[in-house]
Amino acid sequence: MHEYDLDKPQDHCGIMGVFGHPQAAELTFLGLYALQHRGQESAGIVSSDGSALFDIRGMGLVADVFNDQAKFNLLSGNRAIGHVRYSTTGASVGNNVQPIVMNTKDGALSVAHNGNLTNALTLRRQLESEGAIFQTDSDTELLVHLIARSKEPTLTLRVAEALKSVQGAFSLLFLSKDEMVIARDPHGFRPLCIGGRGDTIVAASETCALDLINATYVRDVEPGEILTISARGMESFIYAPANHHMCVFELIYFSRPDSRIFGDSVDRARRKLGKILAEEAPVDADIVISVPDSSNTSAIGYSRASGIKFEIGLIRNHYIGRTFINPSPFMRSYHTRIKYNPVIGVLKDRRVVLVEDSIVRGTTLKKLVSALRNVGVKEIHIRVASPPVRFPCFYGMDFPTRKELIGAWNSPEEIRDYLGVDSLKYLSVEGMLAATAQEPSSFCKACFTGEYPVHLDEYVSKRLASESDEKWAQAELERILGSLG
Amino acid sequence: MHEYDLDKPQDHCGIMGVFGHPQAAELTFLGLYALQHRGQESAGIVSSDGSALFDIRGMGLVADVFNDQAKFNLLSGNRAIGHVRYSTTGASVGNNVQPIVMNTKDGALSVAHNGNLTNALTLRRQLESEGAIFQTDSDTELLVHLIARSKEPTLTLRVAEALKSVQGAFSLLFLSKDEMVIARDPHGFRPLCIGGRGDTIVAASETCALDLINATYVRDVEPGEILTISARGMESFIYAPANHHMCVFELIYFSRPDSRIFGDSVDRARRKLGKILAEEAPVDADIVISVPDSSNTSAIGYSRASGIKFEIGLIRNHYIGRTFINPSPFMRSYHTRIKYNPVIGVLKDRRVVLVEDSIVRGTTLKKLVSALRNVGVKEIHIRVASPPVRFPCFYGMDFPTRKELIGAWNSPEEIRDYLGVDSLKYLSVEGMLAATAQEPSSFCKACFTGEYPVHLDEYVSKRLASESDEKWAQAELERILGSLG
Amino acid sequence: MHEYDLDKPQDHCGIMGVFGHPQAAELTFLGLYALQHRGQESAGIVSSDGSALFDIRGMGLVADVFNDQAKFNLLSGNRAIGHVRYSTTGASVGNNVQPIVMNTKDGALSVAHNGNLTNALTLRRQLESEGAIFQTDSDTELLVHLIARSKEPTLTLRVAEALKSVQGAFSLLFLSKDEMVIARDPHGFRPLCIGGRGDTIVAASETCALDLINATYVRDVEPGEILTISARGMESFIYAPANHHMCVFELIYFSRPDSRIFGDSVDRARRKLGKILAEEAPVDADIVISVPDSSNTSAIGYSRASGIKFEIGLIRNHYIGRTFINPSPFMRSYHTRIKYNPVIGVLKDRRVVLVEDSIVRGTTLKKLVSALRNVGVKEIHIRVASPPVRFPCFYGMDFPTRKELIGAWNSPEEIRDYLGVDSLKYLSVEGMLAATAQEPSSFCKACFTGEYPVHLDEYVSKRLASESDEKWAQAELERILGSLG
Amino acid sequence: MHEYDLDKPQDHCGIMGVFGHPQAAELTFLGLYALQHRGQESAGIVSSDGSALFDIRGMGLVADVFNDQAKFNLLSGNRAIGHVRYSTTGASVGNNVQPIVMNTKDGALSVAHNGNLTNALTLRRQLESEGAIFQTDSDTELLVHLIARSKEPTLTLRVAEALKSVQGAFSLLFLSKDEMVIARDPHGFRPLCIGGRGDTIVAASETCALDLINATYVRDVEPGEILTISARGMESFIYAPANHHMCVFELIYFSRPDSRIFGDSVDRARRKLGKILAEEAPVDADIVISVPDSSNTSAIGYSRASGIKFEIGLIRNHYIGRTFINPSPFMRSYHTRIKYNPVIGVLKDRRVVLVEDSIVRGTTLKKLVSALRNVGVKEIHIRVASPPVRFPCFYGMDFPTRKELIGAWNSPEEIRDYLGVDSLKYLSVEGMLAATAQEPSSFCKACFTGEYPVHLDEYVSKRLASESDEKWAQAELERILGSLG
Repeated sequence: MHEYDLDKPQDHCGIMGVFGHPQAAELTFLGLYALQHRGQESAGIVSSDGSALFDIRGMGLVADVFNDQAKFNLLSGNRAIGHVRYSTTGASVGNNVQPIVMNTKDGALSVAHNGNLTNALTLRRQLESEGAIFQTDSDTELLVHLIARSKEPTLTLRVAEALKSVQGAFSLLFLSKDEMVIARDPHGFRPLCIGGRGDTIVAASETCALDLINATYVRDVEPGEILTISARGMESFIYAPANHHMCVFELIYFSRPDSRIFGDSVDRARRKLGKILAEEAPVDADIVISVPDSSNTSAIGYSRASGIKFEIGLIRNHYIGRTFINPSPFMRSYHTRIKYNPVIGVLKDRRVVLVEDSIVRGTTLKKLVSALRNVGVKEIHIRVASPPVRFPCFYGMDFPTRKELIGAWNSPEEIRDYLGVDSLKYLSVEGMLAATAQEPSSFCKACFTGEYPVHLDEYVSKRLASESDEKWAQAELERILGSLG
Repeated sequence: MHEYDLDKPQDHCGIMGVFGHPQAAELTFLGLYALQHRGQESAGIVSSDGSALFDIRGMGLVADVFNDQAKFNLLSGNRAIGHVRYSTTGASVGNNVQPIVMNTKDGALSVAHNGNLTNALTLRRQLESEGAIFQTDSDTELLVHLIARSKEPTLTLRVAEALKSVQGAFSLLFLSKDEMVIARDPHGFRPLCIGGRGDTIVAASETCALDLINATYVRDVEPGEILTISARGMESFIYAPANHHMCVFELIYFSRPDSRIFGDSVDRARRKLGKILAEEAPVDADIVISVPDSSNTSAIGYSRASGIKFEIGLIRNHYIGRTFINPSPFMRSYHTRIKYNPVIGVLKDRRVVLVEDSIVRGTTLKKLVSALRNVGVKEIHIRVASPPVRFPCFYGMDFPTRKELIGAWNSPEEIRDYLGVDSLKYLSVEGMLAATAQEPSSFCKACFTGEYPVHLDEYVSKRLASESDEKWAQAELERILGSLG
Repeated sequence: MHEYDLDKPQDHCGIMGVFGHPQAAELTFLGLYALQHRGQESAGIVSSDGSALFDIRGMGLVADVFNDQAKFNLLSGNRAIGHVRYSTTGASVGNNVQPIVMNTKDGALSVAHNGNLTNALTLRRQLESEGAIFQTDSDTELLVHLIARSKEPTLTLRVAEALKSVQGAFSLLFLSKDEMVIARDPHGFRPLCIGGRGDTIVAASETCALDLINATYVRDVEPGEILTISARGMESFIYAPANHHMCVFELIYFSRPDSRIFGDSVDRARRKLGKILAEEAPVDADIVISVPDSSNTSAIGYSRASGIKFEIGLIRNHYIGRTFINPSPFMRSYHTRIKYNPVIGVLKDRRVVLVEDSIVRGTTLKKLVSALRNVGVKEIHIRVASPPVRFPCFYGMDFPTRKELIGAWNSPEEIRDYLGVDSLKYLSVEGMLAATAQEPSSFCKACFTGEYPVHLDEYVSKRLASESDEKWAQAELERILGSLG
Repeated sequence: MHEYDLDKPQDHCGIMGVFGHPQAAELTFLGLYALQHRGQESAGIVSSDGSALFDIRGMGLVADVFNDQAKFNLLSGNRAIGHVRYSTTGASVGNNVQPIVMNTKDGALSVAHNGNLTNALTLRRQLESEGAIFQTDSDTELLVHLIARSKEPTLTLRVAEALKSVQGAFSLLFLSKDEMVIARDPHGFRPLCIGGRGDTIVAASETCALDLINATYVRDVEPGEILTISARGMESFIYAPANHHMCVFELIYFSRPDSRIFGDSVDRARRKLGKILAEEAPVDADIVISVPDSSNTSAIGYSRASGIKFEIGLIRNHYIGRTFINPSPFMRSYHTRIKYNPVIGVLKDRRVVLVEDSIVRGTTLKKLVSALRNVGVKEIHIRVASPPVRFPCFYGMDFPTRKELIGAWNSPEEIRDYLGVDSLKYLSVEGMLAATAQEPSSFCKACFTGEYPVHLDEYVSKRLASESDEKWAQAELERILGSLG
């Protein structure tokens, strides 16, 4: 009875910034609305009027945290940054709501972060040994510490110094009382783009946020680039050479289909994923249906390429509550049933291709298959518009532990039997990459292949090892850890 | 920034009842979840354990009112009725949340009501003159008064006596500590069906609620029928001859596509509406898109019949907040933009057929057209899968006042110009009726034609007249009032 | 950890009305603030602007329900009535918050009631058999039914007709859109007075509410009198001859010391209670202390008459929370300790007279004695400024069941031993009455003597019998029931 | 309509710690209940089970924040510290709720602080320049930074190093997962004592918290002393020589009369203040009354010494709400009236001595005088049980700005005229000190005399100067700043 689909990877965040508009906070709010799919657990906006920072943050959807026009009266100033977050770790959940605001020798500084650092604990232990105090478990607080310790004369240079010492995935927005600083890690794991609306400069995780507020897409922030926006205008600073490893899962599942990321239309890429899937894994069937809404576009692609007609076979219930406290087993058993409702007139006695964008744990899909069987579907052929997910992500996606990744331990045939379907085919890694508009080598595909492009520090490695002790073959683990070097 | 689409008619309610299951309240909750599209403003459940009634009601979605398993501990007993409501009139909003519970000489009685009585005020004035006290403005309270005054020996006969004196639309569930009584008005305006799950008997507005809880559809409650469920089993009593006038709008918009109502699959009917629309109003275009989600099925029908391919051109944002307090004009102007997001890759430079199930005021659609133009749509051809809405409904749909009905005062050409599209065509009344599975005469189509099947009392007539004084031609008004006989 | 002192009787309500002031609702709020000691569980105000009634009601203190000036914007009009309530019975607690508002043939009518009817169930069963519907368990709703059924031409006459048929205790305020009607039962059990402030007429349970808003006391409402306030001014109507039985406990405990009720100053009466107590029950001791705050005045009276000096030996903690959910036995054991804090410097090695206004169950007092012993009090002499409470009240006080009344089953000597004190003396009935300013016969003293002045209906009698079956001597019960004739 | 009496100085906090009891958090809660008078705006408890810290904090009274037994389930472990706070400065109010918890290289550390540092900003600027980040404006966070930077091997030594570098007033409780550390500044401005209950060690601001939980008073924490409680027992460490400057206002107003602080009974001291006041400022009058509740004891002392009888002339309304939002001027004008209710029977035609413990702004007192006049008091003689408050406090009391201190700018005669009373006399500084049980030189009396015992840093001095620019004579300011050394 809650919104989280544990059968999907979870993105940590969406970020939005506006500089140079009298309604900066409202535009940021609207942008976060468009980015809500990137995080539903908390939301926050920090604004500046040139002399002080103002912030409102809270648990819940953007529309719940900012449910009253009066709140915007508190967010003065013509610049603002905002953040939506998927889920938080650590005990003091409320403290982790972003953008965080901290006081440094150079004044108050606010940060909104999408991503995950892979050497955070190593750096944190260092700083702590020098007397630094941490209030949260978040990587983001670490960044502020690094910036605060820098002796460089400008915020841009202090940010650059800090970013050079961290590793991992980060798309970042900083707001001081004078400047907005935008940065993206050298691999470009997470998307980040800038747009314009008159004299206003906008930064957003995805272009759908620009579109909503009628801002024109200008360009992506480059991997390894810092952009500084101030009264002087916008200045670019390349602090590290780009070494593209863009997260291919953004195209498969995370981003909104009407967005344009990594130089590609998400809608186009998903349609292409479906088409290539139809070519790689054809089947004789009556109709193509999708698991709504994230697989709609690839299902249409599959339908178009295969010539099998597309139908709406599952209705998604969008009135899901935020939380249901203490569900009984009886109630819990209805969760998937509430969410997806089969249309019997469409499905009964049909041979159905069910297109799903990805499979993580497979538990929801199993219940869905059972619901389809109940309404008399004749044959179920699952076609997955991505390869098997086999490895954890350390660059900002929140998968279940590796033990729970059904693709890590089972062959497609075993998964087919587990789900109880007539056939099941995954898209190949090559097919997936062919659907993109960029060089195959420019994507991170670690969750499919185990090839991690960025070093993990000893703390992360240990966690990886500890998660694995029961089922992981030690040999494979060592191979992976070896590859991280 | 709120959920209500003022461009659609609003149904008053969905109702659900369960008799003979240890988790009756939980099953009722699940059924209400499935019926949530019929009312989002309040929800309530009343249960009985054979010796007393227990109730929990509140404002908000089902999942908000019943957000904690612990609440079900209070709803003891193996029978329960529930209600979701769209909107309430009158000042004391909270008092109007259903099911209502009242104490009569024969013990506590609870009622859940979907519909609208047309002689309510006449009867109320009568009862008040005899000393009756009313706590709410609702028709439902009137029903309880009538029942309480009956001297008949059984609840069934008391309900029958009461229902014989009222006119209008009502699908009803009553719960006393011993019995559940189910009733439907002789015209059968609103749907109501019964199902079974082992020894458990279930009643619901739509079959989708039966499906969710794995209950098997048994049959519709007949117009003019009262069903009494007790320890003795289920007994049927025909208190009035059936005179079918089923609301055709249930098929067009209200009901969920996976439901079966009025002996027809909603999905099938909508697909047929789209097909006939394609035949009546063909157009040369590149793609067919729908206004999601309610027009999806008819858009697919249009696509299939016309051979023009179906695309997902608009993404609906489902993270809309419940309420946004005191929106500024700046914020308000973004409402439609937030809800519907155009997919530029699908739409740019295309000639688009936009299928919409119905047009009430046209204001949202106008903004949607403007958003489509912004992303470079070449031609927009609106096809409406129902005729122009021209008259108010007095049988349970909540339209805007007649002044606001764009179809009442404007020709399709004028509406086309107002919306700024290349063409606009409505489905004909005949075409609409041909898409159903029943005799054309068995439907109420008053909102399209002004032919009201049931008498309105003087209070309703006066309101109709008062709403009209500015713009309605007095002649037409008299014609309508005359037709009400 | 909650505010309720189960060792004291509980009054049901305080009422306040204002007619003819642009800030009628605010003045009513202020009056309720002054009457808060009469009821802490719920509060409500209903106002009228001459054309409609407006109401705000809620659970909690007056200051919690009306915590925002903006709420008064909703309470339009220059007249209002308000209510504070001690505790509610029945399941639907919220529904019982007063003033209630109901719709009758003569328009909306609101009522605020302090008291208790003794033939309520008899009348209710009659009305129900004629088809009346009840929404609450309250006596107050019954009154509205009786009024609504009257065919008399004016509200005053309808109220008179209704009041003639009920028995028991009632101080009442009615508000229709045009009139405020004030009434008091023929026995005058509960206080009710009127005051003036310029052209504004005010009615209140106690004069302290008049004082707060600078209104001048005019006179008490007479037992058996109805006062009607309208555009015509104030009119008096005697519907029944006065037969005074004023609740003597109002003087002992309920009313605020700065009030004037029953033609007497509460402060003066309490001081006199203490003085007579000192004369009836002298003791050789070092200091006199009180159980704060309700016994302060009688303790000062005792001190003055005995010549033993008054000291503040117990500090009352006023930061008690509204509710503490699920207290553990460990926590519960601290309840009395939190509330009363002994001042060791005052108490150690002293012989102490502890003046208490009344003893109901004695459990709190026992803990208090133990706390005094802990700080080294040498001798404890309890002096109670009223006689032993031995019988339940049916006229508006909420005692524990008779089983729990320590004075009903134990002699003063037994109570002294139970409490573990050196001596314990009660004031005599005669001494108590001598402290008042009225004829002894004009008071109700049933809780001390069992002489009930008003008939109880069969339902109340049965409850009285059922409460008694374990410990009450059947003979005594019959004597009491016999006396009720 | 709110609890804060702006006519009194405000203490910042009360603190409570328990070590070695299975219900440590509950005992801490009870202790905070007893200390609630020291701070009503927020409350918090942090516990430790030896392996981790757990915390619950919130805005409101102790009983509001901890309103459910279930909350204590989260506060595991046999040791805990707690805090109540009067008022917070800075924008992010919620962040300032204590005890704060921070992560250092040596693990999580929690702190509860009563007092105020006078060189906080100087130290903070230093730390910030070295890269430290501050999340709040509080002095308390500064302490944690200093501790975290210390290289000393034990928490005790790290605390000692940190405390040596700060100046001002501080009574402190620290909780790490292993140890509780208790410290008091060398001047002993604020009280802090320890007690025992079996093997359990308790620390509290006042002894009333020990009494409530049946702990025995052991001794005060010495000025300049650090006490470390761990599995090894309790160890004392003198980090600085004591130089007593105990806040005399604790005896006059802050502390609870049943507490023993600074080696003296508060009740005894206040009675003595009243007695000396009667000797210094006698008057011919009929009765002595107090401004309840804080002046009760000194009023009794005055009565005893003067022979004029003590009466309860003002009833305090304890049902004051937490906050009243947006009061209109009409509503605001009733604030004092609601709080203090004159007892007319006691006051009318009497010559009254009104004993007040202290006067800060005088505005409430002026309204009270007017209320007394309204009920016909013949003469009003105000006797203040402390000297005129003339200077701000920098050691933990929160006065209004100096501009608002009526005693700073007016002679007693001018104040008498302002208040409109027949006479007004203050206690002399010598008289005040004579009422205490310690050497006069061992008290801080800066608010009366301007003799500040501890250096203020440049930031505080500047604030003092800025507050003064309108009305302060520059000469006097310089004298004060000069005296601060």
